[in-house]
Amino acid sequence: MPRKVAVYPGSFDPITYGHLDIIDRGLRIFDEIIVAVARNSAKNSLFSIDERVDMIQRVLADNVRARVDTFDGLLVDYVLSQNATVIIRGLRAISDFEYEFQIAQMNRSISQDVETLFMMTSVPFGYLSSSIVKEVSSLNGPIDGLVPPLVREALKDKFSKPR
Amino acid sequence: MPRKVAVYPGSFDPITYGHLDIIDRGLRIFDEIIVAVARNSAKNSLFSIDERVDMIQRVLADNVRARVDTFDGLLVDYVLSQNATVIIRGLRAISDFEYEFQIAQMNRSISQDVETLFMMTSVPFGYLSSSIVKEVSSLNGPIDGLVPPLVREALKDKFSKPR
Amino acid sequence: MPRKVAVYPGSFDPITYGHLDIIDRGLRIFDEIIVAVARNSAKNSLFSIDERVDMIQRVLADNVRARVDTFDGLLVDYVLSQNATVIIRGLRAISDFEYEFQIAQMNRSISQDVETLFMMTSVPFGYLSSSIVKEVSSLNGPIDGLVPPLVREALKDKFSKPR
Amino acid sequence: MPRKVAVYPGSFDPITYGHLDIIDRGLRIFDEIIVAVARNSAKNSLFSIDERVDMIQRVLADNVRARVDTFDGLLVDYVLSQNATVIIRGLRAISDFEYEFQIAQMNRSISQDVETLFMMTSVPFGYLSSSIVKEVSSLNGPIDGLVPPLVREALKDKFSKPR
Amino acid sequence: MPRKVAVYPGSFDPITYGHLDIIDRGLRIFDEIIVAVARNSAKNSLFSIDERVDMIQRVLADNVRARVDTFDGLLVDYVLSQNATVIIRGLRAISDFEYEFQIAQMNRSISQDVETLFMMTSVPFGYLSSSIVKEVSSLNGPIDGLVPPLVREALKDKFSKPR
Amino acid sequence: MPRKVAVYPGSFDPITYGHLDIIDRGLRIFDEIIVAVARNSAKNSLFSIDERVDMIQRVLADNVRARVDTFDGLLVDYVLSQNATVIIRGLRAISDFEYEFQIAQMNRSISQDVETLFMMTSVPFGYLSSSIVKEVSSLNGPIDGLVPPLVREALKDKFSKPR
Repeated sequence: MPRKVAVYPGSFDPITYGHLDIIDRGLRIFDEIIVAVARNSAKNSLFSIDERVDMIQRVLADNVRARVDTFDGLLVDYVLSQNATVIIRGLRAISDFEYEFQIAQMNRSISQDVETLFMMTSVPFGYLSSSIVKEVSSLNGPIDGLVPPLVREALKDKFSKPR
Repeated sequence: MPRKVAVYPGSFDPITYGHLDIIDRGLRIFDEIIVAVARNSAKNSLFSIDERVDMIQRVLADNVRARVDTFDGLLVDYVLSQNATVIIRGLRAISDFEYEFQIAQMNRSISQDVETLFMMTSVPFGYLSSSIVKEVSSLNGPIDGLVPPLVREALKDKFSKPR
Repeated sequence: MPRKVAVYPGSFDPITYGHLDIIDRGLRIFDEIIVAVARNSAKNSLFSIDERVDMIQRVLADNVRARVDTFDGLLVDYVLSQNATVIIRGLRAISDFEYEFQIAQMNRSISQDVETLFMMTSVPFGYLSSSIVKEVSSLNGPIDGLVPPLVREALKDKFSKPR
Repeated sequence: MPRKVAVYPGSFDPITYGHLDIIDRGLRIFDEIIVAVARNSAKNSLFSIDERVDMIQRVLADNVRARVDTFDGLLVDYVLSQNATVIIRGLRAISDFEYEFQIAQMNRSISQDVETLFMMTSVPFGYLSSSIVKEVSSLNGPIDGLVPPLVREALKDKFSKPR
Repeated sequence: MPRKVAVYPGSFDPITYGHLDIIDRGLRIFDEIIVAVARNSAKNSLFSIDERVDMIQRVLADNVRARVDTFDGLLVDYVLSQNATVIIRGLRAISDFEYEFQIAQMNRSISQDVETLFMMTSVPFGYLSSSIVKEVSSLNGPIDGLVPPLVREALKDKFSKPR
Repeated sequence: MPRKVAVYPGSFDPITYGHLDIIDRGLRIFDEIIVAVARNSAKNSLFSIDERVDMIQRVLADNVRARVDTFDGLLVDYVLSQNATVIIRGLRAISDFEYEFQIAQMNRSISQDVETLFMMTSVPFGYLSSSIVKEVSSLNGPIDGLVPPLVREALKDKFSKPR
């Protein structure tokens, strides 16, 4: 069988240990994982696309089978353009479930050649999200076990500047 | 990379088009899928283990990369004994989600070498379960689009006998 | 337009003020409501079918547009046999939602001529079910605001007998 | 009994096949359905009220028992002003359920003379929403089975203009 | 044992009978409840911090064991600064549950010395929220059973001014 | 203020680290916790009431502010008979939530003098239940981090006997 490539899409604003756990576990199953940062997300981001890509690259520097990319347009088109057939997503909770279900069904209706696979987040990361990390960090709360050191420094920088 | 084998465990009492959809889609991702019928399920089954295995074998007869087996004991032990590293499960709904989450977390706590991957059921099978098929069939309702013809006949046989 | 008849199916073991609220509200919309007690329910019932029908009849005695019946076989077949086109059901909670969704979709797949309509239970009855009434009554707890007086007496009778 | 009029309120930005399915099924039960476009919705809309009303009118042109209107102020007041007593709403998922429950209970607390009835969306439209149609369309994805042709054209127009 | 102080945090924009019910019931368990209005909430508020504090103070004027305060920064730090060890929160529904769960787990990861306790909202307030009160009030709907008279007047004032 | 006594009811078949975590955390808030084993539970238990009480007593032997008791009849009556005013319960997941909500509302309707307080289970115990412990143990799986050593031995004993 050919190499199996999976795309792990998201906004990664910023990347957390929860995301890295999914990547690690995904690499036991797939030959390569492309961490795909969405360019056209409606959400206001704290970090620019370039900052987010740079952080992910540094965090994954030693991981030869994971690489970072960005995409815009339909996710399904991007996945096919990379000769990938699988999208992976982490599921934390019920609210994730419904949203992810809707997106996965829509993606299948666009192309039956792309499959979405879900992993349950690991227990210690079940309550973790980029949003809550940003909120805690903006209030000078501790985020040591939640994001890699270089992301922690980047958050500190962002929130120490007057806004 | 070595061949990727996934185990699809369940009671399959009986197998439905919903299960077959998961198997078909799983085979696009994995080299082999083992349909693993649980021997030690607490549930009262309509069909015996042998009947269930036989139906699955006949339904999957043309599918050289899917095979049927039975297991008892811990699912994780069975998966490792087959040199597989992946369990696949279909998710239909919220209630599935919570139960599956609990089982997946427990399985991870037993072995970090086995990963559970979830697929959303295809839209037309979202409301389908072995239980509802059995109930409709027991009332002589139509189950044509829900199970393969040979399962339909087996259900008819079961419910025509005096119980 | 012809008279609009709705079927309100259930096990009604026993009927509660929550059920009666749905019937009252349904009668503002439909010309007639048939309270249809399921004969072939898998659940162990506390009251026999005859006892349940009798209690409902007495509770609804003054209500000329509601009548009680029993059915077995497919609900959809029963609804059509009554020249009804609508099934009404009360929704209390999420767990109701998923089960009801599955049943409603299955019923639609059997006949597109029967539609299921859902009402939210009234606020004071949101936590009320026949099961919890039976449990509280079996422990000699107060059930005055939950079921009509004659049902309360019937429950008292059941639970005062040695079992 | 008098004619039964039901109001189907929403933002319809734009109308989808999911909405039309609810209207079709509602017309089997009610004599008339008023598709009521909310003027005072907090959401930023893609289409103006006039554009939305125009699209619905054209889509429902052949349907003599459905008509389009707009409303502002309390929905319950609008329903009563139309001599209607029923609000119909489609339920897709759990998240719908909770929001709809809250609104329905509030509406009942304002007037006991207006009843909200819910229909489960048909299986193929379970993952469909105006929002996801807009998102897919904005990315030039296929929306053929999701909205009527004239809505598809209107979406194409909107998204081809520089914004 | 020392006096037990609980913090009841929120945006209270404005305070409703649902909040007051939680405070009343909390006071049967704790010696003192601090109603803590969050200063750094991301949400756009209708009432200023000062207006909200003033309304709560007047509503709780006769309640010597409840007092109002404001806080910014981490909630956990605020709780500890008040020599309190308990946060109380009302739970209405599933969507509450998931959000509250995430916040409670994050708070525990910051300090194990602060515990979050949840109460189910009383049945009549299960559908009540500050948001829905504001929406109904902005449409001149009745809010008599939902907020104290002085809050009702304050809402009327807000919405009668041209915005 | 008087001593605050909380009742922690359940079937505890058997007690797990998840239960013990709730007891530990509850003791930071209440002066005394009564672990109340329900005698009249409908569930088939693995351990007898006496075995369950004995295991809890041994596990809590050093904890002078926690004691074990059994009860039958209405929980609310038992709580009041102990001069307690609070019931504590752990919440793990959505399905817990709905069931617990129903029970808590029913208890409040029986007595407004008893309040139910909920704690979120600690992260590592979110997927833990007596049922899953029994299932894993019956399959000879590892349960070391899930129950105290003496419970593990008791489970081993139960499942090594021919049944």
